[in-house]
Amino acid sequence: MTLPAQHGEMVPDFDQKFQDTLHALFLWRRDVRRFRRSPLPDATVADLLALAALAPSVGYSQPWRFVLVEDAARRAAVRENFARCNAEALAEQRGARAKLYAGLKLSGLEDAPVQIAVFCEEGTHVGHGLGRRTMPETLRYSVVTAVHTLWLAARARGIGVGWVSILDPEALSKTLDVPEDWSLVAYLCIGWPEEEHLDPELLRSGWENRQDLADGILRR
Amino acid sequence: MTLPAQHGEMVPDFDQKFQDTLHALFLWRRDVRRFRRSPLPDATVADLLALAALAPSVGYSQPWRFVLVEDAARRAAVRENFARCNAEALAEQRGARAKLYAGLKLSGLEDAPVQIAVFCEEGTHVGHGLGRRTMPETLRYSVVTAVHTLWLAARARGIGVGWVSILDPEALSKTLDVPEDWSLVAYLCIGWPEEEHLDPELLRSGWENRQDLADGILRR
Repeated sequence: MTLPAQHGEMVPDFDQKFQDTLHALFLWRRDVRRFRRSPLPDATVADLLALAALAPSVGYSQPWRFVLVEDAARRAAVRENFARCNAEALAEQRGARAKLYAGLKLSGLEDAPVQIAVFCEEGTHVGHGLGRRTMPETLRYSVVTAVHTLWLAARARGIGVGWVSILDPEALSKTLDVPEDWSLVAYLCIGWPEEEHLDPELLRSGWENRQDLADGILRR
Repeated sequence: MTLPAQHGEMVPDFDQKFQDTLHALFLWRRDVRRFRRSPLPDATVADLLALAALAPSVGYSQPWRFVLVEDAARRAAVRENFARCNAEALAEQRGARAKLYAGLKLSGLEDAPVQIAVFCEEGTHVGHGLGRRTMPETLRYSVVTAVHTLWLAARARGIGVGWVSILDPEALSKTLDVPEDWSLVAYLCIGWPEEEHLDPELLRSGWENRQDLADGILRR
């Protein structure tokens, strides 16, 4: 379908080939935990952040805040944060599942050349509160769409992204010395992947199966 | 960059042209509030839901649940829910901003032929809790990435999506009679757009400006 654009802009032609390749991108976008250590160009990282900022946001609040974690001591503290939380999670697993959990690789924190902590500025006045009076969590959801945009844009460049959530968010905020009203949404490991997979790591490892989508659809 | 894929799958060629068109998709993905009433084919809706289910999810929990809202009485109740919440939001605005708010079109609930309420199944055991012990909100964030995936896939087909958040989520859950442990993440209006825009509606209307991304980036 084509429609005349306002203001004389050309509406792009999202043709069948693009739709098919976008489908492939959704399929091949994986959570990457194994990275090569070769650095990414600064300009590439800047491009990815600029694309992330094109994400939708409630009331046009644009609440995404990005912390490039570069300092060696801070990175070590993040790894310790993860190790502590992961050990606690493992301790709650039982029997065969504990063994399976222990064998999973759940972060690329040792190797990923670029690491970005993504926060939501909870106290922002940008957007004047529009759209988030009854569902204030949509502010954080806006940040999630920015993370997902960055992820897809990275993958389209052959770059892998891994989202680490096995972290104590309060301790991480202290480690990174961010403003009080920033809440952690995601910690991203970014770099060239060691390997490419069509199937999720947790499916491949036998941790969980793909669910039947039909079970999650109701008509009302 | 190309890497040999595992299991003999062909890694897709995400070439420069695809990257450029993906950039255009991020730019042209807009929150649509003005829809034509012509229906969407059922198969198109099914395709969009299948693509949404390719989104990342914490611990491979796949917690997205989709409610196709079709019943006329339920749709009327959703519109009333919005009208009530929107009136309350307007009442909190003052002066020139109240006038501006009153003139905004904030939902396409009257016309959108397809309406989908997207929920998170909070009590799901799928994924065995992996990755969400310290950040349980990542379960809902997984649903947000499914919404965003659907949005991008729709736009690539010329279909518009509008995310309505000016709703009382508890009342909506009652209207739609969903299980107790489902929490509302998004209410989506979907259909052919009346118009195409490169700039967000809230920018065009003077509600809010684009922020300087550099202000939201720290190095640590």
